[in-house]
Amino acid sequence: MVLLVQHPCSPQSRKIRIGMSEKKMLFVLKDEEPWNLSTDLFKLNPAGDLPVFLNDGFVLSGSNAIMEYLEETSREIRLMPETPRERAEVRRLIEWFDEKFNREVYRNIVCEKVHKRFSKGLAPDSKILKIGLNNLNFHMEYIDWLAERRNFLAGENFSWADITAAAHLSVIDYLGDVPWEGYKNAKLWYSKIKSRPSFKDILKDGIRGILPSKHYADLDF
Amino acid sequence: MVLLVQHPCSPQSRKIRIGMSEKKMLFVLKDEEPWNLSTDLFKLNPAGDLPVFLNDGFVLSGSNAIMEYLEETSREIRLMPETPRERAEVRRLIEWFDEKFNREVYRNIVCEKVHKRFSKGLAPDSKILKIGLNNLNFHMEYIDWLAERRNFLAGENFSWADITAAAHLSVIDYLGDVPWEGYKNAKLWYSKIKSRPSFKDILKDGIRGILPSKHYADLDF
Repeated sequence: MVLLVQHPCSPQSRKIRIGMSEKKMLFVLKDEEPWNLSTDLFKLNPAGDLPVFLNDGFVLSGSNAIMEYLEETSREIRLMPETPRERAEVRRLIEWFDEKFNREVYRNIVCEKVHKRFSKGLAPDSKILKIGLNNLNFHMEYIDWLAERRNFLAGENFSWADITAAAHLSVIDYLGDVPWEGYKNAKLWYSKIKSRPSFKDILKDGIRGILPSKHYADLDF
Repeated sequence: MVLLVQHPCSPQSRKIRIGMSEKKMLFVLKDEEPWNLSTDLFKLNPAGDLPVFLNDGFVLSGSNAIMEYLEETSREIRLMPETPRERAEVRRLIEWFDEKFNREVYRNIVCEKVHKRFSKGLAPDSKILKIGLNNLNFHMEYIDWLAERRNFLAGENFSWADITAAAHLSVIDYLGDVPWEGYKNAKLWYSKIKSRPSFKDILKDGIRGILPSKHYADLDF
């Protein structure tokens, strides 16, 4: 049985959970607060980030390393397309969200509203929040553009690109900050992903001390 | 023929160049300054990062996507180990350098000393530099620890983990900021990588307006 050390406000944790559910894997979760990591976590992963994947003595960290490992070892249900060029497009989008979206949106919104509150007891800086919300509009435009042209974000089929993007958006959506109304195609795409059985557990997630936005778990939002 | 749009102070560009040389690929370089990207670059890669890989009309960005694509399509010379668990360790270390080292060292040292100077004409902030140099010691300890226990960073064989780590260190070394003396095993490992033919071009790199450190190109440093 797989144990995933994770946190509901970590998009990388959500990504791996959704991927494992898609692959019908059994796993249990153990929460660690990113702003208050235990010494045990650092023993498992000296980089000090989430999630950490444990399976029968095998320990793996780094959400990209975990994703590729799952794809290589759990091959009945594939979440990567057939050809190298198509896979390249999936990985390009994964990097987009794990690096660019993370730096431009997550750090300015989630770190301000959640990490800062629980690690330092401070209120968010409204200037930083505003930058994050502004950046989010740019990313929503890009998702909308992709969703208008393609069946799923990276092409014809559902892939790790959709999982990664939805994992990131779902944390911002928990906080009620996604401006769905301006982005019809992005909204349609997200409602497709949200309806998948693999997303069910994500919609039950709770961040201690912060209620989810009203529409967070609604399939019809 | 492959065209790589890149810059000598981008570790991700260096990584792909070294990997392509290891694989005996032919390629030409086109420089773009990261602090002054052209509109053409944004047309190729809306994320606005380097490098961008072009091959006969196929355009790919995201250094991880490019690396996996090279590994999947240029298979005579492999830079990934045999088993999924070994590959996972390679990818874990790649993430370590591309995310953690980048955030904790590159941004505090290279962005301060190079990007800031050319984009804003400003001198580096000594407080930020000090944080970067401090963080670098932690990373050197980790490289030293790995190099003491393993033949190469991720295990028995040379891999993309060595390429990525050396690419990142080489930019810092250009600026003369790597404290080699305290880290014997790390130094031995780096001199092994530095001696490879694939590294030759990296050692000829020049960042406009900044001379390399005296020992930068020395194989015996």
